[in-house]
Amino acid sequence: MFTVGVIRVITQKQADVEAHGRLLEAMFPQFTCVSRCIPNQPEGVHDAATKAEAVPKVVALARELAEAGADGIIVSCADDPGVPEARALLDVPVVGAGESLAVAAMRFDAPVGVLGITPEAPECMARILGSRLLANVVPEGVHDTRDLLSPAGQAAARAAACELRDRGAGVIALACTGFSTISLAPTLEQATNLPTLDPVLQEGTTLLQELLRRQV
Amino acid sequence: MFTVGVIRVITQKQADVEAHGRLLEAMFPQFTCVSRCIPNQPEGVHDAATKAEAVPKVVALARELAEAGADGIIVSCADDPGVPEARALLDVPVVGAGESLAVAAMRFDAPVGVLGITPEAPECMARILGSRLLANVVPEGVHDTRDLLSPAGQAAARAAACELRDRGAGVIALACTGFSTISLAPTLEQATNLPTLDPVLQEGTTLLQELLRRQV
Repeated sequence: MFTVGVIRVITQKQADVEAHGRLLEAMFPQFTCVSRCIPNQPEGVHDAATKAEAVPKVVALARELAEAGADGIIVSCADDPGVPEARALLDVPVVGAGESLAVAAMRFDAPVGVLGITPEAPECMARILGSRLLANVVPEGVHDTRDLLSPAGQAAARAAACELRDRGAGVIALACTGFSTISLAPTLEQATNLPTLDPVLQEGTTLLQELLRRQV
Repeated sequence: MFTVGVIRVITQKQADVEAHGRLLEAMFPQFTCVSRCIPNQPEGVHDAATKAEAVPKVVALARELAEAGADGIIVSCADDPGVPEARALLDVPVVGAGESLAVAAMRFDAPVGVLGITPEAPECMARILGSRLLANVVPEGVHDTRDLLSPAGQAAARAAACELRDRGAGVIALACTGFSTISLAPTLEQATNLPTLDPVLQEGTTLLQELLRRQV
C-alpha cells in the first residue's frame, strides 16, 4: 500500500543497508521499502561532527527517494539527522527514529531512560522528553553502532539497561537504530522487566500514522 | 493478525457500536475488531460523573474481551475512562484515545490545540502535554458526541479549529472519538492547514505498536 524510502546514515553494502527496511516490512505489511545509505560514512552518525556531515547527504537522498515515488521517508537514526531540513523541503512525510521514540516513551507515566551511543541523549529526544528524561547511558565500551554487534557490546547494553531501571526508569528508549539491527529490545525488556522501545518499530508506526492521516 | 477488542463508551445499537472497529479495520489490515459498548449510557462520557459511571463498566468489558481472546484492547474515548484500571488488571495491552492523541501531538514542535466536548482537556491529555497544551476549545452548541452529527455542530467544529489556529496552535488534537465517527479530521485539516489528529487513527497506531513490541 505504501512505498517507504528508508535512509540509513551509515555507509554499508546494499544487503546490510536493507536490514531496517526488511524489519519494517516484516512488522508493517502495508510497507514496501526502498533503502538507501549516505555515502562515505562507514562509522555512521555518533557525534556532532558526523551528524553535521550527514545532514546534506540525508536531504539529498530524501529528495531523490521522494522524486522516485516514495510515499514517505524514514531517516533510520535516533539523532534525526536532516529530518527537519528534509521535512521543510518535501511534500511527503519525513520521520525520524528519535522523535518517534521520544513521543512513544511519553505515553508511559514514568521517567524515561535512554540507552544510546552518545554521551548526551539526542537533542530531538531531549526536546520532546523535557523533565521526563531521567538519564542517558552509554553501554561500556560502545562508541559506535558497530560495537553493538559483539557479545561484549550486548552484555554491556544489558548492564546499562539494568542500571537505568535501578535509577528509576519506568520505560527504556533505545536511542540507536543499531539496537534494532540486532533485535536487542526483547532481550533488554526481559532483563529489566520494563517496556523497551525499539527505534525501527517506533519510526515505522510514526510514518504509518502520518501516511494514514494524509490518505483520508 | 491481531484480534482487537474495541470498547465504546456510549450505549448504541450494535451496527453503530461497530463504527470505530470498521474504521480501524480499514486503516489497519492487521486488525480484526470485536466491538462492545458499555450499558445504560446513551449520552456517553462527557463529564466527571459520566466518566466515573463508565469506569467499572469499561473494566468489566475489557476483562471479558481479553478472556474471549482479544490480543489487545482499545478504549475508544479521549477521556481514557478505565484505561489505567484495566491495564493494571490485564496482561494484554490496553490503550486509550486520549493518551494516544497527546503523544502524537507532542511530536510536532508546536503548541497543541485541543478540540473537544468538555470545558477542560481530558486529564490524560493535559498530563502528557503539560505546557505544550495551548488551549481546549468546545465547538459552540456541542455538549455531547451526538451534537457533532448535525451540520451546525460540524460548522461549529470548523470555527473552533480556526480559532485554535488563530490563537497559535501548530497542531490540533480532536479530543472526542465522535469526531472520528463523522470523519471530521480531513475537513478541519483543510480548513486550518494544520495537522489534525484523529482519535481513532491514533488509538489504532498506539495499540499496533504495543502489539508489535510484545510480539517479538
